[in-house]
This record gives sequence, structure tokens and C-alpha cells, in this order.
Amino acid sequence: MKPNGQWRLAAHPEGLVKPSDYRWVEEPLREPRDGEVLIRILYLSLDPTHRIWASGRESYVPPVAIGEVMRGGALGVVEASRNPELPEGTRVRGLLGWQQYALSDGRGLFVLPDDASIPLTAHLGLFGHIGMTAYFGLLDIGKPQPGETLVVSAAAGAVGSLVGQIGKIHGCRVVGIAGSDDKCRWITDELGFDAAIDHRKEDVGAALGRLCPRGIDIDFENVGGAILDAILARINLRARIVLCGLISQYNATGPVPGPNNFVQILMKRARVEGFIVSDFLPRAAEATAALTRWLAEGKLKYRVDVVQGLRNAPAALNRLFDGSNTGKLIVEV
Amino acid sequence: MKPNGQWRLAAHPEGLVKPSDYRWVEEPLREPRDGEVLIRILYLSLDPTHRIWASGRESYVPPVAIGEVMRGGALGVVEASRNPELPEGTRVRGLLGWQQYALSDGRGLFVLPDDASIPLTAHLGLFGHIGMTAYFGLLDIGKPQPGETLVVSAAAGAVGSLVGQIGKIHGCRVVGIAGSDDKCRWITDELGFDAAIDHRKEDVGAALGRLCPRGIDIDFENVGGAILDAILARINLRARIVLCGLISQYNATGPVPGPNNFVQILMKRARVEGFIVSDFLPRAAEATAALTRWLAEGKLKYRVDVVQGLRNAPAALNRLFDGSNTGKLIVEV
Repeated sequence: MKPNGQWRLAAHPEGLVKPSDYRWVEEPLREPRDGEVLIRILYLSLDPTHRIWASGRESYVPPVAIGEVMRGGALGVVEASRNPELPEGTRVRGLLGWQQYALSDGRGLFVLPDDASIPLTAHLGLFGHIGMTAYFGLLDIGKPQPGETLVVSAAAGAVGSLVGQIGKIHGCRVVGIAGSDDKCRWITDELGFDAAIDHRKEDVGAALGRLCPRGIDIDFENVGGAILDAILARINLRARIVLCGLISQYNATGPVPGPNNFVQILMKRARVEGFIVSDFLPRAAEATAALTRWLAEGKLKYRVDVVQGLRNAPAALNRLFDGSNTGKLIVEV
Repeated sequence: MKPNGQWRLAAHPEGLVKPSDYRWVEEPLREPRDGEVLIRILYLSLDPTHRIWASGRESYVPPVAIGEVMRGGALGVVEASRNPELPEGTRVRGLLGWQQYALSDGRGLFVLPDDASIPLTAHLGLFGHIGMTAYFGLLDIGKPQPGETLVVSAAAGAVGSLVGQIGKIHGCRVVGIAGSDDKCRWITDELGFDAAIDHRKEDVGAALGRLCPRGIDIDFENVGGAILDAILARINLRARIVLCGLISQYNATGPVPGPNNFVQILMKRARVEGFIVSDFLPRAAEATAALTRWLAEGKLKYRVDVVQGLRNAPAALNRLFDGSNTGKLIVEV
């Protein structure tokens, strides 16, 4: 049989991912056994949480062990099937890993709807975990009310760019924080954010003070660190901090001090709540229906940022942390 | 008329309160005007939040200005009345201030029930803001479930000692953190906590690991700092951190780093929520009814720690931070 190219974890990264942290191996594939399918992987999703999974530290899921195929969400097509429920040609999504092919008994696989109007890559973004993260995080945890001020960090990222638009749909004033002129222009001019702050050029605190004259009611937090501190300093009474990610610290090599303005959570009777999209899987249809409608109505736009070639996956992961990614980062395998 | 002895704020304290931060003045009292009452203050409540109010920093209420009578909850008896709703002899509670007498038009006053079985001081504790803080903080924010593990910091304090007992009433395993052998013995032997940790003698993290073998579901947080960090390191999925106070930092003279383990809020999908008892005032009767019942059933005990003489109030405030207070700190005026 043909070989299966795979990225296996060679070392738990310290700081940004280095080439030596992953090892490229080509293993002979075996035939699917009874009940199994062989999936040819087409697209791999790269997400900030991959850096957590690779770290070796305890988190919300077990870390990837040294020598294991790197865990990752992906979509592919069934190329050989000994499972009648997943005939050849079926397109599926799941935690298929950083590899060219995956064998599966079908558990944990999601069969993609046969809708040619949806680009395949959207199933790893808007209609995948990304859209659900934005939808449930903002609406269920953030509980936005019309007229409230919503701040989104990593606002030009896959999740952040959707969160801001969903906030606008719900009548919020939306201020995004991103890391370049281009990103700031994209989220304001194309996505309809009310304002954007370039954290590489501006004093975030001063800019927030200027752009959020009535304070901050909701923070959709993807970054943490100094940006979170600047936000906490300006939250309103009963603010909600939706803790989706803390990408400023996933590459940290030592203890990370928490926000200096932690006391504001007490003073403003605020709520900080961490969440993970998988808790909302039973309600996936609700998110998909809403996102589909908003997309059709032109209220929602998204961008995919496609890297060519599985061989480039480890290096591309760093793009989620060095500022060079806009929109959903995907590897075309 | 007789003079009114008062503590007026002379300087916003830096660190622990110094004698020079307050100025004792005796001002002549004027007669109450139409609609007013003159209240002779009997007991003054000393609370950690007084240190916040004195600090000059913005918080959940305006800071006390230099020269103002220090703000504080107190109870007293109406000694002269030109308000038919508050005849002479009425016992009232309110933000009467650190002084011997207060003039009031009745707004914001709470008339104490005429129940001789309740010691007066209990109206500044169990049946005042303290009991309500413990009751609503634990039950509404913490939402304890039978079998869950509850950790309480400042567990021998006025609020903490009640929280642990209410946690036991609701079927939790309760571990208290306090600062002396005596305090630890009191909360376990007399109040029925399952275990106690002396943070001055023990490694809090190691002790929590030993005493909370199934992790921590609820943290009723009064302290912050290293204790909060040790707790965060051991929280369970969907833990609730009830942010009632952060006494470890009220006397800080510079920025205070937030908890190093802040990331745990994300990883464990936990919720941190600040609250203030005044938000629950409309439901005071609910708390009073439950606390009265539990007290009668012998399920709830409390202790008052009475300091004699209003002149000792500023020095006594530090007892809330230096470890020398157990139970509700009150000044007998």
C-alpha cells in the first residue's frame, strides 16, 4: 500500500514551535479492517489550541505524547470503506491528525452535508468548531444586549472576526484589537466593526478609553496578558469576560503572571468564564442554522488563510502567534 | 449641645492604616431638623472593605474624601426625633459612619426587629451584611451541590466562618484556610468544617492536594494572592470561584500581579464572579429566614470580636489584615 506521511511529535515545544519539535515520518498504510474506513485527508485545521496540546502540560484534554501523530481537526474523503454507513466518497470531519491518511471506525466522525454551495474549507471554519466557538461563546457566555460595548481581541483571527460580526448583528458597539493596519482595515471596512485598535502601534488602554466611551460590557478574550489588563481596567458593572483563549501565553516558557487588574472582577462584580466549544456540540444545529442565515443575508463574512502542503504544518502553526495570520488558518494537505 | 466624637479621614492610607491616616475631631451636634432623627451609635461594624473605601481609589463605591467622616455600617438608637416614622428609642442600622452620633433623614436606615432574643451585635453580622454575603455569595454565585468540595479562605473571618457552615448544610465537603491553630480548631471542632489549613504553617497547595482528593468545585475567595493561586491549580471542571474579597491586596502599595494560574479558568471552563451584597438587598428576607432557622436548629454558630471604644477603631481595622481577628469585628462605641 501507499505510504502515509505524518507529523509525529518529537519534543514538547518550548516557546514557538521549532522544526525539531515534529518529525516527518512515512509509514505504510494498512487496509481498513471490518467496520473501518480509510480517509484521505484534504484539509487540516490549524488552531491555537494545538500549541496547548503539544505542550505536554495538563489542559482540558490529555497532551499529545512524544511519538504520537499530532492531534488536529481535519476533513477528508473516504477512499476505502468496510463500514456500510460511510461509503466511499463520503466527506467527513474529525480529529484525523496531522497526516495524509487516517483509519477510523467512524466514531467521532461528522459527515459533511452534501451542499455544493459551501466551500469545503468552510467546514473547518464558519460551519465547524470556529463558528460554533464564536456563536456559543458570545451568545451563551457573553449574553450581549443591544447598545452594549463588545471588545474582541485577536479580532482578525478565525473566531474573533466572527464574534465581532455576531456582536454587530446583536446591536453591540464592537471594537476589535488586532496586530496590523491590514487587519484593522479588514475588520472595520469589510466586516463592519465600529472601530479597531492596532496593538502593535497604539497604546491599547488609551485607545480603548477613546473608543469605548461608555466602558466595556463584554470582552471576548482570545489573548490575555497586557491586552486583557487594559480591558479589565475599563470594564463596566457586571461585565462578562468570555475566556476563549489566552494566546499571548501558550508559548510561554515559565509561569505567567495573571492580570494585574484582576481586582476589577471584584470591584465591577464581573464574571470571567472559560468555555470550550465541545461542550456545545449537542446544540450544533442551532449555530449552523443561524450562521447559514446570516451568511445568506450578507451579515457575515469570513476569510480562509490556506497554507499549501502538509509538510508546512509545523511552521504554519507559529503564524497563529506571530501575527501573520488573518482569518481561518488551514493546511491544504 | 453635646459634642460628637468622629474619625475623619486625614490621609489615604498606604499599606496598613497608620494613626495619622485618621483624625479624631469633636464637633458640636446640632438639633435634628424637621424630618430628621439624631441617632446615638452603639456598635460600629469594621469590615475589610473599609480599607478599600479609605484608599482614594475608584472601586464599587466612591472613595471617602479627605476630611470626611469615615464611612461605616453601624447600629444605634434614635435619641431625638423629628420624624414620626422613627420615634425615640427606635433601633436602626445604616451607614452611620465612624462617630458617636449621626443625624439622618431616615433614608437608607433599616429598623431593627424588636426581638430580644437576638443580640444587638448580630444585626451587624449574621443578620446583617455578613450573613447575607455568605448566604447569597455561596448559594447564588457558588451554586453548591451535595458532594462537591468547597474551599473557603479567611475561613475564621465573619463571612468565611458562615460560608463553611452553609456549605456543610448543603452537603459539601468543606475545607477552610485560616491563619492560626486556634482558628483552625475553631472552624473544625466547633463549626464542623471537614478540615482546615493553617496557611502560616503549611504549604497551602500541598495541603489542598491532600485534603481535596477529588479537586475543588467551589472556592469562596476572600483573600486572593498565593492562596487563590494554590486553589486555582486544583479546581475541577466547571468550578465556581466566588469572588467576595481579595484582602491580601487591599493594603498593597503598588500594582498586584494577578493569579499565575489564571489560565486554569480557561482550561477548567471555570467561572469567576465578583459580587457585592448590596445587589441582594431586595432578597434580604429570604436570607434572614434561612439563617434564623439554621441558627435555631443549631446548624450555624457565629462569633463576635468586640473592640471597646470608638477611639480604637482605626487601629482595630488592621486586625482584619494582620490575622488577629476571628469572627465578626465590631467596635462598641
